[in-house]
Amino acid sequence: RSMATSARSSLTIGLIPADGIGREVIPAAKEAILAVQSELPPVKFIDLLAGWDTFTRTGTALPSETVQILKDECDCALFGSVSSPSRKVAGYSSPIVALRKELDLYANIRPVVSVSADTTAPPAVDLIVVRENTECLYVKEETLTQTERGKEARATRLITERASTRIGKIAFELAKARPRKLLHIIHKSNVLSVTDGLFRESVRAVPAASDGQFDQVDIQEQLVDSAVYRLFREPEIFDVMVAPNLYGDIISDAAAALVGSLGVIPSINAGDDFVMGEPVHGSAPDIAGKGIANPIASIRSAALMLRHLGYTSPADKIDEAVNETLAPAQVLTADLGGKSSTSQVTAHVMGLLQK
Amino acid sequence: RSMATSARSSLTIGLIPADGIGREVIPAAKEAILAVQSELPPVKFIDLLAGWDTFTRTGTALPSETVQILKDECDCALFGSVSSPSRKVAGYSSPIVALRKELDLYANIRPVVSVSADTTAPPAVDLIVVRENTECLYVKEETLTQTERGKEARATRLITERASTRIGKIAFELAKARPRKLLHIIHKSNVLSVTDGLFRESVRAVPAASDGQFDQVDIQEQLVDSAVYRLFREPEIFDVMVAPNLYGDIISDAAAALVGSLGVIPSINAGDDFVMGEPVHGSAPDIAGKGIANPIASIRSAALMLRHLGYTSPADKIDEAVNETLAPAQVLTADLGGKSSTSQVTAHVMGLLQK
Ligand SMILES: CC(C)[C@H](C(=O)O)[C@@H](O)C(=O)O
Ligand SMILES: CC(C)[C@H](C(=O)O)[C@@H](O)C(=O)O
Repeated sequence: RSMATSARSSLTIGLIPADGIGREVIPAAKEAILAVQSELPPVKFIDLLAGWDTFTRTGTALPSETVQILKDECDCALFGSVSSPSRKVAGYSSPIVALRKELDLYANIRPVVSVSADTTAPPAVDLIVVRENTECLYVKEETLTQTERGKEARATRLITERASTRIGKIAFELAKARPRKLLHIIHKSNVLSVTDGLFRESVRAVPAASDGQFDQVDIQEQLVDSAVYRLFREPEIFDVMVAPNLYGDIISDAAAALVGSLGVIPSINAGDDFVMGEPVHGSAPDIAGKGIANPIASIRSAALMLRHLGYTSPADKIDEAVNETLAPAQVLTADLGGKSSTSQVTAHVMGLLQK
Repeated sequence: RSMATSARSSLTIGLIPADGIGREVIPAAKEAILAVQSELPPVKFIDLLAGWDTFTRTGTALPSETVQILKDECDCALFGSVSSPSRKVAGYSSPIVALRKELDLYANIRPVVSVSADTTAPPAVDLIVVRENTECLYVKEETLTQTERGKEARATRLITERASTRIGKIAFELAKARPRKLLHIIHKSNVLSVTDGLFRESVRAVPAASDGQFDQVDIQEQLVDSAVYRLFREPEIFDVMVAPNLYGDIISDAAAALVGSLGVIPSINAGDDFVMGEPVHGSAPDIAGKGIANPIASIRSAALMLRHLGYTSPADKIDEAVNETLAPAQVLTADLGGKSSTSQVTAHVMGLLQK
């Protein structure tokens, strides 16, 4: 699934480092794109604001200007990571959740592949989490009432046929393109028979409405609790996993834990006409500012974004340089047991890209 | 936290094996209780129906007679495991979720401890998941509407101050009694600021309302996605984890994956005046009827139930016999890499109990 590249005479990329280590790793992703720019239309970057820091300075975590420029001027974007307050703060709400909704970036695609020094053997973990990105509890419709028995809070979990079908299509397309062609639908319909039932049935209905193009895809199901259990015990059973928003959030972190570090897991938030790369890790306040954050997740997110836009060859080059950096395990950040800094790892990847 | 034992001149235990391997493992739990009956008031068992099989035969998954007998005649119960249909079936709804609600068994307590042959070293994983058992998405208030854009389903996630406070108390009591006295509150308040915000604040408010008795408990927090990630990466950081219902479901399966098998993880569903033991594993249709299911989770659930009722010494005896069975790793079921049958493992535990 990629958008046509031919229509583009230039490539304008919004950069939203946001908070914490986002500010240290997004520059690495920018460098990687610059290193392959000979294979792209003229690239332009626009720096944009969002996040907790922006909130404390301006009173809003997602300035309307940021959204406007993304919509009007950018072809795609890279988002870093966002810090959240440890207590509820009036007026603050997560800018990444808002951006996904504003730009209708309905598919959160998270490939999780283990790194191995032995490049001849198939990786132990090689799966893609396809997470619905606009609904479920993330609609953030919450109410609080005071009753005689104390406070009562309610949140709405929304699952629509339309959103479940479109995320299902993305998942089938990804599964179809992979050797194993296996799709697991993750749900909890033994408890949520209506909402998760609708998710499951909508995804299952995709092949019948797609002229047989997904007939070779093997469809399986797994309850979310068992999915997490089996991810730990036998991750090799999974190929593509499609899930409603919250389950997708949790299983992608679970899968990430299997391959060494969240610091290597990229993602894109994709809609029909916009795509935003985003490392899966958070803002990591404990290591922010030390220059030791792993830039790999961001660099890979740039590659994933370029690939989604149709620029396969530069995306492949970036991915190869990353793999050639990881496999020998000599230039690694601390999360992977190494001693290298963000800039050393970035420089190593760039060196390979410039070869 | 235990109910007074002195008031009891007899101990009536409802047995609800339900479906699949539940029928093979609940008898083992019964045997274990019989083996320690000299330390208990006269024990009586009542066999009760529930589950998918019961549904297909009678049209209801939880006969009202079962609930009535549990309420009127039983002091406690043991529940096996329940199968669920692979598609939505009109009129079917999970009997375990219904039982937890009917009997107001608001605390689902799941200790997860790794088994080690080296009994001198502390276990690598030693934590308790304390799961709220009556609210969250498990209230099962779901609606389905047909709109111009297709079907839309909504579920309500309910979090109340009352339920969050009472589960918080249980968690603080458990944490206080443990050497590390550490409590992690699991939530996702960066997205669900109102519902998970209420859960977090209600749990945090417990010590101030408890006359200083929980002052030594160290309170920490973890977002649910990070909690799963960190469970895999550094499970030793957790001691007691308290969570709303769905997160608790998922993290207890995640924790179980760390210690070898779901087949060894017990739980109790506890209320103020009733307690029901339940192995955390499911009905395992793939191995049901083969006599190879692991009886340990059920036997441990019986011990946990007796302990909760105040019968510490017989509970200790059962737990010791289980540990003495697991540590040498000679009589194990297939899920733990062994070749023994359900009855061989059960017989081994009973042999140790009768010594
Ligand atoms: C920061 C948070 C709102 C976000 C989410 O839950 O989606 C993050 O965990 C992620 O996975 O991108
Ligand atoms: C069977 C199912 C309804 C149940 C739950 O989700 O509570 C099970 O997964 C459990 O953990 O006891």
